Amino acid sequence: MGDYTVVALDAMGGDNAPSEMVKGAVDAVNLNKEVKVILVGKEDVIKAELQSYQYPAEQIEIKNATEVIETAEHPVMAIKRKKDSSMVVGLHLVKDGEAEAFVSAGNSGALLTGGLGIVGRIRGIERAPFGALFPVKTGVALLADSGANVDCRASHLVQFAKMGSIYMEKVVGIKNPRVAIVNVGAEEEKGNALVKETMPLLKECKDINFIGSIEAREIPNGYADVIVCDGFVGNVILKLYEGLAGTLVSVIKGGLMSTLRSKIGAALALPALKKTLKSFDATEYGGAPLLGLKGLVVKTHGSAKAGEVKNTIFQCLTFKEQKINEHIQNNIVIDKKED
Amino acid sequence: MGDYTVVALDAMGGDNAPSEMVKGAVDAVNLNKEVKVILVGKEDVIKAELQSYQYPAEQIEIKNATEVIETAEHPVMAIKRKKDSSMVVGLHLVKDGEAEAFVSAGNSGALLTGGLGIVGRIRGIERAPFGALFPVKTGVALLADSGANVDCRASHLVQFAKMGSIYMEKVVGIKNPRVAIVNVGAEEEKGNALVKETMPLLKECKDINFIGSIEAREIPNGYADVIVCDGFVGNVILKLYEGLAGTLVSVIKGGLMSTLRSKIGAALALPALKKTLKSFDATEYGGAPLLGLKGLVVKTHGSAKAGEVKNTIFQCLTFKEQKINEHIQNNIVIDKKED
Repeated sequence: MGDYTVVALDAMGGDNAPSEMVKGAVDAVNLNKEVKVILVGKEDVIKAELQSYQYPAEQIEIKNATEVIETAEHPVMAIKRKKDSSMVVGLHLVKDGEAEAFVSAGNSGALLTGGLGIVGRIRGIERAPFGALFPVKTGVALLADSGANVDCRASHLVQFAKMGSIYMEKVVGIKNPRVAIVNVGAEEEKGNALVKETMPLLKECKDINFIGSIEAREIPNGYADVIVCDGFVGNVILKLYEGLAGTLVSVIKGGLMSTLRSKIGAALALPALKKTLKSFDATEYGGAPLLGLKGLVVKTHGSAKAGEVKNTIFQCLTFKEQKINEHIQNNIVIDKKED
Repeated sequence: MGDYTVVALDAMGGDNAPSEMVKGAVDAVNLNKEVKVILVGKEDVIKAELQSYQYPAEQIEIKNATEVIETAEHPVMAIKRKKDSSMVVGLHLVKDGEAEAFVSAGNSGALLTGGLGIVGRIRGIERAPFGALFPVKTGVALLADSGANVDCRASHLVQFAKMGSIYMEKVVGIKNPRVAIVNVGAEEEKGNALVKETMPLLKECKDINFIGSIEAREIPNGYADVIVCDGFVGNVILKLYEGLAGTLVSVIKGGLMSTLRSKIGAALALPALKKTLKSFDATEYGGAPLLGLKGLVVKTHGSAKAGEVKNTIFQCLTFKEQKINEHIQNNIVIDKKED
């Protein structure tokens, strides 16, 4: 791969493909000399998009793939049947060592299925969770699993906690990140069967900074850096976060437009308000990596635009530099052998 | 009980007891001639609080109870040991037919334990869920179970759907309420094991307006009137709703104070903004009933003030007028016999 970190990007996935995907790739290579992006998808379509831009030609490559997996397609069927889809082709680039990472805004279930089936899990990792970064009052937190595994066992959650902790420390740069498990109360006896079984196992982990239960009420305050739960609960948290923030902003806008006085006030306050709300925009934080695979596979929002795509590509650089998978291999899998 | 609807109120439960509890009771009887409130708790303390107010003496009664169950106490132990607590005494008033309903802002787990143990479930009801009312863009929705049963079976969720539907139609007045189950996607094959098992059972229910899955993202939009899930997921939804709304409002306030221009704007916009945010305040909607008990037991927020206490007392009047428990008995339990 030469001196570049090579990131394969699904040029056909997501609501704003191919235009925003291609623009994100161009923006990334124009800002960083160390990354090369392989745009995976229909060659003619990608070439047409690229014509609008100036960029260092050696940092962008096209890999032709004639098929596209749609958002509504059945994940397993889609991966099985569409061998020449941008997603399957892109995942093979990671498997074959031609790219360090694959980024897609497409069908999450297909990316999970393909990531597991084509790239494969690190030996000893039982389940690969999505680790979504999302905004909290004090900065950013990681939610694992944010939606990959809707039914989990206690041993899965323990690995999510460890992998999430490594990710937050190495990629996001938070020293000794606080790890908490989502629960219905802070008291010792609280929890459903899964949480009750997981709690003592997490307490025994010496290699993470486990701080106990976190009630959903405390999540937005930034009370923990790594938030552990099964993928059903994690998906509910992430989606409600996005939905409620959007609804509240629209309700507040409606309120501001309700009287003449408040309209004038809103006009004056708008720039500061927009800046503040941007800090609470989940799309600013890049994608959700599938943790625990042999190569890096990252999901960005279906609605991702160029800015998020670019941020996600940069996230891949840190992931490689920090040798995350070696850490996972050394800390988690060796732990397991010792058990 | 004469011509009054009698509501027993835990004068000692919650963060603002006894003052806000007593004030809520006084406000309720001053506004409504048909309700009588029995204030349950330490007689001398309640009497001292009541001295500040004018109210029709025949509409307020005191029932002495010498003990108080604290918020942090172990629910089962507390109910077992504190026989003369305001909660245990209040629940016995319902059991013995001396009150139609018992309202408490105290320890939720203890209220659940006591509600089940003292008042008891309607025959045929497998689990009693908390049915919390919460604000959505279009008005109000009911979440069942919002936290009583952290591990559920499919048959429990089906009963939650039916009881929630009756409550929204009869008490809140929404005709043919739309019932949805919390899920990680709208597609047929999505869901964890519990949701997949529950889905076909809900589809078979002819007596509810089941509209399928609801993603957490859609909950704040008012896409469904009755939202069904297990009590772990429900607790996460309700708590995150409260926490995120609070955090966003504080983040927005901070943003508005960041520049002189925006400060002036904020001052002009503030009255309209406050009014809007009030419509999204969960405490405006009264308490969460424990559905499916032989008498009405309602939990209000631990932080409830007089306004919420008053609203919750009025909610009890509707519950009685609409004969909710007869509907539950006739629709759900008879259904079950036919199965």
